[in-house]
Amino acid sequence: MSDTDAPDSSDGPAPSDADGPADWLVDLRRDLHRHPEPAWREFYTTNRIVEAIEDLEIDGLSLFVGPEALDLDARSGVPDETELAPWRERAREIGVPEDRLETLDGGRTGLVARLDRGDGPHVALRVDIDGLPVTESDADEHVPAAEGFRSENEGAMHACGHDGHATIGVGTLAAVADSDFRGTFTVCFQPAEEIIGGGRAIAESGHLEGVDELIAIHLGLDHPTGEVVAGMDGILAVRQIRAHFEGETAHAGKHPQAGRNAVQAMAAAVQNLYAIPRHVDGVTRVNAGRVEGGTASNVIPDSAVIEGEVRGETTELKEYMSDHADRVLEGAATMHDCAVDVVTTGEAPSADSDPELRTVVAEAARGTVGIDSVLDQAPLGGSEDATFLMRKVQAQGGRATFVDIGTDHPGGHHTGTFDVDEASIAIGVDLLGEVVRRLGGS
Amino acid sequence: MSDTDAPDSSDGPAPSDADGPADWLVDLRRDLHRHPEPAWREFYTTNRIVEAIEDLEIDGLSLFVGPEALDLDARSGVPDETELAPWRERAREIGVPEDRLETLDGGRTGLVARLDRGDGPHVALRVDIDGLPVTESDADEHVPAAEGFRSENEGAMHACGHDGHATIGVGTLAAVADSDFRGTFTVCFQPAEEIIGGGRAIAESGHLEGVDELIAIHLGLDHPTGEVVAGMDGILAVRQIRAHFEGETAHAGKHPQAGRNAVQAMAAAVQNLYAIPRHVDGVTRVNAGRVEGGTASNVIPDSAVIEGEVRGETTELKEYMSDHADRVLEGAATMHDCAVDVVTTGEAPSADSDPELRTVVAEAARGTVGIDSVLDQAPLGGSEDATFLMRKVQAQGGRATFVDIGTDHPGGHHTGTFDVDEASIAIGVDLLGEVVRRLGGS
Amino acid sequence: MSDTDAPDSSDGPAPSDADGPADWLVDLRRDLHRHPEPAWREFYTTNRIVEAIEDLEIDGLSLFVGPEALDLDARSGVPDETELAPWRERAREIGVPEDRLETLDGGRTGLVARLDRGDGPHVALRVDIDGLPVTESDADEHVPAAEGFRSENEGAMHACGHDGHATIGVGTLAAVADSDFRGTFTVCFQPAEEIIGGGRAIAESGHLEGVDELIAIHLGLDHPTGEVVAGMDGILAVRQIRAHFEGETAHAGKHPQAGRNAVQAMAAAVQNLYAIPRHVDGVTRVNAGRVEGGTASNVIPDSAVIEGEVRGETTELKEYMSDHADRVLEGAATMHDCAVDVVTTGEAPSADSDPELRTVVAEAARGTVGIDSVLDQAPLGGSEDATFLMRKVQAQGGRATFVDIGTDHPGGHHTGTFDVDEASIAIGVDLLGEVVRRLGGS
Amino acid sequence: MSDTDAPDSSDGPAPSDADGPADWLVDLRRDLHRHPEPAWREFYTTNRIVEAIEDLEIDGLSLFVGPEALDLDARSGVPDETELAPWRERAREIGVPEDRLETLDGGRTGLVARLDRGDGPHVALRVDIDGLPVTESDADEHVPAAEGFRSENEGAMHACGHDGHATIGVGTLAAVADSDFRGTFTVCFQPAEEIIGGGRAIAESGHLEGVDELIAIHLGLDHPTGEVVAGMDGILAVRQIRAHFEGETAHAGKHPQAGRNAVQAMAAAVQNLYAIPRHVDGVTRVNAGRVEGGTASNVIPDSAVIEGEVRGETTELKEYMSDHADRVLEGAATMHDCAVDVVTTGEAPSADSDPELRTVVAEAARGTVGIDSVLDQAPLGGSEDATFLMRKVQAQGGRATFVDIGTDHPGGHHTGTFDVDEASIAIGVDLLGEVVRRLGGS
Repeated sequence: MSDTDAPDSSDGPAPSDADGPADWLVDLRRDLHRHPEPAWREFYTTNRIVEAIEDLEIDGLSLFVGPEALDLDARSGVPDETELAPWRERAREIGVPEDRLETLDGGRTGLVARLDRGDGPHVALRVDIDGLPVTESDADEHVPAAEGFRSENEGAMHACGHDGHATIGVGTLAAVADSDFRGTFTVCFQPAEEIIGGGRAIAESGHLEGVDELIAIHLGLDHPTGEVVAGMDGILAVRQIRAHFEGETAHAGKHPQAGRNAVQAMAAAVQNLYAIPRHVDGVTRVNAGRVEGGTASNVIPDSAVIEGEVRGETTELKEYMSDHADRVLEGAATMHDCAVDVVTTGEAPSADSDPELRTVVAEAARGTVGIDSVLDQAPLGGSEDATFLMRKVQAQGGRATFVDIGTDHPGGHHTGTFDVDEASIAIGVDLLGEVVRRLGGS
Repeated sequence: MSDTDAPDSSDGPAPSDADGPADWLVDLRRDLHRHPEPAWREFYTTNRIVEAIEDLEIDGLSLFVGPEALDLDARSGVPDETELAPWRERAREIGVPEDRLETLDGGRTGLVARLDRGDGPHVALRVDIDGLPVTESDADEHVPAAEGFRSENEGAMHACGHDGHATIGVGTLAAVADSDFRGTFTVCFQPAEEIIGGGRAIAESGHLEGVDELIAIHLGLDHPTGEVVAGMDGILAVRQIRAHFEGETAHAGKHPQAGRNAVQAMAAAVQNLYAIPRHVDGVTRVNAGRVEGGTASNVIPDSAVIEGEVRGETTELKEYMSDHADRVLEGAATMHDCAVDVVTTGEAPSADSDPELRTVVAEAARGTVGIDSVLDQAPLGGSEDATFLMRKVQAQGGRATFVDIGTDHPGGHHTGTFDVDEASIAIGVDLLGEVVRRLGGS
Repeated sequence: MSDTDAPDSSDGPAPSDADGPADWLVDLRRDLHRHPEPAWREFYTTNRIVEAIEDLEIDGLSLFVGPEALDLDARSGVPDETELAPWRERAREIGVPEDRLETLDGGRTGLVARLDRGDGPHVALRVDIDGLPVTESDADEHVPAAEGFRSENEGAMHACGHDGHATIGVGTLAAVADSDFRGTFTVCFQPAEEIIGGGRAIAESGHLEGVDELIAIHLGLDHPTGEVVAGMDGILAVRQIRAHFEGETAHAGKHPQAGRNAVQAMAAAVQNLYAIPRHVDGVTRVNAGRVEGGTASNVIPDSAVIEGEVRGETTELKEYMSDHADRVLEGAATMHDCAVDVVTTGEAPSADSDPELRTVVAEAARGTVGIDSVLDQAPLGGSEDATFLMRKVQAQGGRATFVDIGTDHPGGHHTGTFDVDEASIAIGVDLLGEVVRRLGGS
Repeated sequence: MSDTDAPDSSDGPAPSDADGPADWLVDLRRDLHRHPEPAWREFYTTNRIVEAIEDLEIDGLSLFVGPEALDLDARSGVPDETELAPWRERAREIGVPEDRLETLDGGRTGLVARLDRGDGPHVALRVDIDGLPVTESDADEHVPAAEGFRSENEGAMHACGHDGHATIGVGTLAAVADSDFRGTFTVCFQPAEEIIGGGRAIAESGHLEGVDELIAIHLGLDHPTGEVVAGMDGILAVRQIRAHFEGETAHAGKHPQAGRNAVQAMAAAVQNLYAIPRHVDGVTRVNAGRVEGGTASNVIPDSAVIEGEVRGETTELKEYMSDHADRVLEGAATMHDCAVDVVTTGEAPSADSDPELRTVVAEAARGTVGIDSVLDQAPLGGSEDATFLMRKVQAQGGRATFVDIGTDHPGGHHTGTFDVDEASIAIGVDLLGEVVRRLGGS
């Protein structure tokens, strides 16, 4: 970030004006967009956010980076060294300092920022920061391609708007710091949301102890710029799995009968996973999102993998799907004399937004410039490990809501043409700054 | 290869003695074994064979390396630059000269050696030189692991004995050069056999024009050391394919119906490919040897691939399987609203060994030290693109046979514990040297 | 029906008292229960209802039996003579008169009763009368078995309570006839609901012209005795199909390749039908409820059939499922070189209950003895061709609702242990009598 | 059979002349063809054969009918009363006497005829007599349809030539009786071959004790009229199974998740049964020849059945297929939370024809009018429970062969257009009469 882009610290930060987000927020968002990093590999991202916050020179702020932000035992889906190494190397090449890399290495990315402003309620904001293994569009009509901030990490992309989420987190921190808010304000920049890997680690980190009000946010979700949903419901419970089928290899021409064909087992499983009966109690989902098996066309495959997931509108429905999936995987292995090993790589419960907190958000939204439609509730349809944080706060008597800030997105979430309307970043910062102020003592 | 290992050129080469292959042949074989390279990536292998032959300092020898050995238009399965690059780089690192790499690059590996020894018949020997994408065993009882010549290219392995084939090719060249053979003797060191990619390119290269007798060889094939099969039959016709299913991606939780699921299509295809009806006219085979699809557990997969093959005891049976496979792939795509693109990556006909040439081999075998069992015929059960060379020679009025030289192999072909008994390399060199001498004018 | 059971016509009918339905209604229900007849085979049932109504000797009543009650062109799923014959024969044997059989034969069952009571609104009630191909439980704890009115038509059963619906229809007619109702009251005794075959034929018969208010009813649906739902929503749109795969037969041992295997095609279709992606817009369903194929274990099957259905919470969702199912069936046939012929055997749209009419029902329910829980709305989850009638009336400016009258049912709908609590029949008659009275001019 | 057709007993029987079979044999064959009866239901067939033999008034003949011909404990696949009843009734209607029906009832059909002609070898002939559940063609070009002897039992057909086999059995008995044969000649008219149900029962009946030479026969098998195969090899070992999947029923719209779907389990099994890996040791077969499941389109099916088979070129290969099939069925049930019960309904080993006996047959064939091509051996490709009889005789030191008598058959075996050329019946009688005479003492 160049000096000229930095907010003038003497005047205090100015995260937005009437026409959209401040230039420095746009720059931050675009820089993050150019450097998407998948779950637990957010080396550059974490460092960039730390630098952006430090540039704000906020009084009373504490930063907890990497291991200080997480319960390391509560993480899931941490990749091994061979998967981490190239991302760490890439971050090194574009200037992330060596000691920061060391801090974050081994699946210890993310940060928590806490602003202490005297007595008053403890309000928390949760944003997520990881990218996806999606290849970004290079079409002319795709704004990041046209305006030069398309992903530089080919095959990875901020295809779910977490670049915007992180930026809103920083912007809101600036806005609250600049306000008369009384109390404690914590912003959790959570890693590894896409693999349901980091939510529980933040929830169990201790940073949520004593939190009275938690706001988790998302951009878009098929709501346009100017629309806000005060509390999403229908956040699907989810279990992500990795099923590894193991058989025996053989020459496909000379000894087909000597093999135990792991790809046949995998294919039988895929066919029948999607065919788990629908459930009358509500929404269910299943996906075999990534599969792989075998080595060469003339070798009976002795190994195959399904990386997939089941979801349910409630935790019970997720369990229903999960039990069925286990049976399907087991039966498919039996059919082809293979063994199957099923590992849960991520899991999150469903959660509900609290009506009172929804009301606070909705009222603030009605007074925010740029917002012309406020919905009290709407279904998410997807999953989110923000539910771990929401349930944590609710369990200790606090309230939580999952707020959607609409944004015009040309392509769907998780596709190569996804993009966010940067106007929604300013809206998000303004709205959340106001909500936090209202929740604070003053 | 160190000087001390090289044959003493003044005495002429001595490829074997009573106790097994000469040390330099063992060294050659083990060096090739340590550096297995898959189809069209035989940079080190080709160079190493060239050097070994040049060390022999044979009179009347011409070498045709890379593009000079091939009809480039007749190749199939040549990988793209991203797949070639790391192998080229690895070869460079272990000393293959830059100009040799340039010659061989772009899928132009392999060589042909021709020995001109005056008037007489033109006899040809065909050996293959490529490795397989199989991970070699590191168990103590696996000889290459125990004796220090296990694959240094992790994930690749000489699991079909082509290291031995190439060594026998060099050894036989040395033996024939040192004999009173009259005529022309051509040794084809063919690349890319495992993907049925190089046979036709050698067959159409021009080097087989005028060949009267062709001998193709293989080690092992479930025959023990000391057993020789004068002519394999049942060489299965084969077609190798790459089927690419293309659908549409979507968020698996929010919009499952918006996807067109390529992995579902692929799984349906796999299930039904293996279920193509058996045929009363003879042996058929089918395998989906490598499959892959999708990107992440929460994304509907828009892409999936099957690399597979069909085989038949006759070319007609292969066609039967092939037609059926095309229908299955098409139907599977239709089911899930995907498109499928099926590319034939390799194809070879069946072929028969000529009885008269079989007799020559069988008689020579009965007089060879170390051979105690001679079979006139036995079924191969697998496929081989040597059939292109056999049919080429037969079509121009010559004779061809596919000889098996038994070897005790602990693991099956194409498995991580495969190995050859080095004694069989000496047997091969002695037998083939004698066969070529008998076929030559003198 | 014996004379002593008949209502005393001088006093007018007395369809219920405080303790439950009148004996004659219980007798009627049990007699219908003993003689369940599947769709379009309701010979005995139709005749029995006609007789029960005639016994009531109601003034101003017109009966329209069989073809007079239906638009014959709007029927679907009418079975052929070989399927009708045994049911007609059975009805003959237990005393249905020859001329009645003739009237009803060929898929012309059911009746409409119209009561003309001067000026006033036209109110209609729709009940259905057909049984299911389910084998009734003979367990001691199954009341019909214990009390001697278990199905006498082995393999057929009133497993969805239509015996109770028909009885309520007759009872309500009696109650309304005995009241001060002013206007026209039409009761449609609809055949062939279970196969979605008769609803459109009643809707298009002309008997609904001028109807202002339509009430369709169902017993049970997981609501207990004493609970009433004033208007069900979530009536799933449905399409029922019969897919016939045709291949070619062959000797399974001698010529497996000569067959074109219709059972393989069918199995591939079943696997993939259930795997049609779930839809974010709402509930979808799919079932391959009856399948059959082939002739003997040693013959390649040349024929196979799926009788199945797709449903959706809206007509659009049903179309989504339907399009997908057609693709799956087509692709499965392609895979195995078979032809497939898909016939729609029944189809019904979704429909919504009108709020104003719901309110009338709810208010009447709150005043009805025996009803202790009144729900304004609840989801049906199943399908119903009553939607044809509802949409017909709504399209001409009238109002419609689908009322559920709770009943304690030990087994689920469509299972062999289903039964209705006869107390709910009295409740239904009382409630509907009151609703009709309230809707009538007076 | 009319008097005029009967052989003149004073002259002895004349089963054939130069132009084809005697009229009475043609009449017998056509009468059997008109009345095909599936396995264990051969009421009319058995009775008709008994009458034909009794009409021959042969000296020294003993008849063993029904239970006297069988080891009842060694039968398999006997249908239950509901399946037997309509066939018994039909036989009664066309004149089979009541006491004969009683004898044969309960799966006790078939007969053995023994001719005692003094000292000498014991020679046995085995023919089978059952029909198939195939619908016979009614096309003009189908001879039985054109000439008025098409099956009168709609849906059943002599589609494998057993009508001809039985006729040859009777004709050969007549021919041997009229010759100078010395020794014992036993003809086994075996029931239930098509379901592999009767062979073991005849083999264990005691009638084969002391048999020195056994000839089993078949017509056709893709060999034309005038060709004879002295000994078939490649008689596939077979196991026929009935797999019953049991799940749980539920309403497909309201409670899809409450079902345990037996049709899904069955479909998964079918898909994967056909996909059992091919075996390098020889021919394997698999078929799911008849499947059925569920009751109605809107009910989750709780029951499904596969009637299928596996075969192998050797008994070991059959076991390989059988083990794999069991795994597939088990795995498929597991997948969908169903139970599966697998019953072996028939099983027969492979068997080889003895070379010496083959030679006797081949030599006799070369001297028989009408035979112009004699093959020593040819593969059957199908299965036959004659192997039980062959192995029984071979085990006691005797010899056995399975002879094919070529016949021009327009349609394939087990198809609706199959028919035999009646000229081959005369050829069969002449050949077998001569073989038996040569084997007899004289």
